[in-house]
Amino acid sequence: MAPTDTAVRTKRVLTGYRPTGPLHVGHWAGNIENMLRLQADPGYECYFFIADWHMLTTHYDRTDELPGFIEGLILDWLAAGLDPEQAVIYRQSDLPEVAEFSLLLGMLTPLGWLERVPSFKERLRDMAERDVANLGLLGYPVLQTADIAVVRGELVPVGEDQVAHLEISREIVRRFNRLYGEVLVEPQPLLSETPLIPGSDGRKMSKSLDNAVWIRDDGDHIRATVRSFLTDPQKLRRGDPGRPEICPVFALHRRFSTADVERIDATCRTGELGCVDCKTMLADHVIDAFAGFRERREELAATPGVAAEILAAGAVKARPIARATLDAVRDAMHLSR
Amino acid sequence: MAPTDTAVRTKRVLTGYRPTGPLHVGHWAGNIENMLRLQADPGYECYFFIADWHMLTTHYDRTDELPGFIEGLILDWLAAGLDPEQAVIYRQSDLPEVAEFSLLLGMLTPLGWLERVPSFKERLRDMAERDVANLGLLGYPVLQTADIAVVRGELVPVGEDQVAHLEISREIVRRFNRLYGEVLVEPQPLLSETPLIPGSDGRKMSKSLDNAVWIRDDGDHIRATVRSFLTDPQKLRRGDPGRPEICPVFALHRRFSTADVERIDATCRTGELGCVDCKTMLADHVIDAFAGFRERREELAATPGVAAEILAAGAVKARPIARATLDAVRDAMHLSR
Repeated sequence: MAPTDTAVRTKRVLTGYRPTGPLHVGHWAGNIENMLRLQADPGYECYFFIADWHMLTTHYDRTDELPGFIEGLILDWLAAGLDPEQAVIYRQSDLPEVAEFSLLLGMLTPLGWLERVPSFKERLRDMAERDVANLGLLGYPVLQTADIAVVRGELVPVGEDQVAHLEISREIVRRFNRLYGEVLVEPQPLLSETPLIPGSDGRKMSKSLDNAVWIRDDGDHIRATVRSFLTDPQKLRRGDPGRPEICPVFALHRRFSTADVERIDATCRTGELGCVDCKTMLADHVIDAFAGFRERREELAATPGVAAEILAAGAVKARPIARATLDAVRDAMHLSR
Repeated sequence: MAPTDTAVRTKRVLTGYRPTGPLHVGHWAGNIENMLRLQADPGYECYFFIADWHMLTTHYDRTDELPGFIEGLILDWLAAGLDPEQAVIYRQSDLPEVAEFSLLLGMLTPLGWLERVPSFKERLRDMAERDVANLGLLGYPVLQTADIAVVRGELVPVGEDQVAHLEISREIVRRFNRLYGEVLVEPQPLLSETPLIPGSDGRKMSKSLDNAVWIRDDGDHIRATVRSFLTDPQKLRRGDPGRPEICPVFALHRRFSTADVERIDATCRTGELGCVDCKTMLADHVIDAFAGFRERREELAATPGVAAEILAAGAVKARPIARATLDAVRDAMHLSR
């Protein structure tokens, strides 16, 4: 049974995911593990959605990849243990109410608020070479507000660096309620630890930086990726003393070699542990950590229609809530049909 | 019978109207007469819609006025002779497909295109004292494009000064078709004469300038408004020679006193015609011109539910077209459900 509104003291938590490609180790540590904790916690009622419209804000010219990415992400989620019996799993574009709600919220959202959002400025910079910014990119926080408020989301898991991004949604909700009455729920941040997982070049692991360890990869690919990681540049060969605190490989050991982490730290520093062996060990642990995931993922992929079924069932649960919110919004704005 | 897609060689014409208040003489001469001509022309299949979402771009904080304005505008249209048997008359917000379509179009519309739209800059200036601009105001042309393209509008009546405003819709449609295939119809401007009707202060007649002659007004109000009109400042009393070409009252005579216009011109110039008599004559003609309108308007207002019925019937006609367009758009963008 999905959690329902009648559950006592549960808070509705919402989190969305842009379907821009397969999961890597950084996603896993930053989001998936957090989502698994949330769905297991009886204090929360979880809404997990695939933000396909948000994907368009930067990838509108690559929509041919979208159906595969959406299906892949759903299978990744399921293989990771996200459970449609414990969480409502749905697709943003299956709630057309979100689009109308977003249009209405945009009517009362000052341009200045949107232009000041740090991630807007950041993305403008990132995409400087590939395209100019579109209206959808500027309007991202408004659509995000509609996503949250349409299902009456109370909590949104965010890292420290994303609090500003949620703050604008809170401001838009407050402005709506001031103008039209207390109709919308103001979401609160649920601060979650988002460990910084470095990629092969030492920068934050990210698809666009081409530095990621992909959890769907087979052992050979994972070994090859781990071998490509930068290490302490002062440790040129075994015997040289290393500095684990600046080494991206050690950062992953912290996560995947918890039983051995102190020994690795010590033997790296003395020089006893060479980088080649150190990376082999890490690759083994990473492969181990995702062996169960890969097996479940393959089973799921062998059964046709799994993702479509999950999304259809999720829409059945989420859509009545979206309809009810939009009806209340239209009434409050004197726009009823 | 409403015109249908099977009619040979008819072109679909679309025009929208923001429900921001009652009609004045400027609207009548600028739009209503044009709409009457279009619906009577067998070459056109007319779609006339109430743009209630567009009203929010500037009046989001006055939505309590909206239901009355919408009903009033429908009754005005009907009393003016717009005919739901000859044109599809509907309300923008009755087509939720428009909101989703607008969201999608916004993903591929460069901010630079929107910031360059002259009416955006103009409105920013106009509203400087009352509010800051919202996302909805910047996104106006995208929503307008969705309005047109969702019903596959081929022609949009515009004045010379509005060609740029339609041009951006044509650009957005072309960009969509380039990215996703030839799905949308590129609308063309239907250049229409929009005579400049001056208000009581000599500037263009407009609600916001508080200089309008309201066609729903009774005779006394119309007389009072016409008496308040500026005239040639060099003609202080009867006997002084006047210059009809700079007189707002004469501009209205051109429209409402067609049989007498040469005599008025001549006797104003000689000084024989004084401004008081000239205005009395104009008021008589304006009152006459709208006598039939006012009578029909009162009859319609006395029958409850007329406007709601018209809108319900219009939605039944327009919505299947909107659904079909949005389905084709979703397919082309790989966003099908």
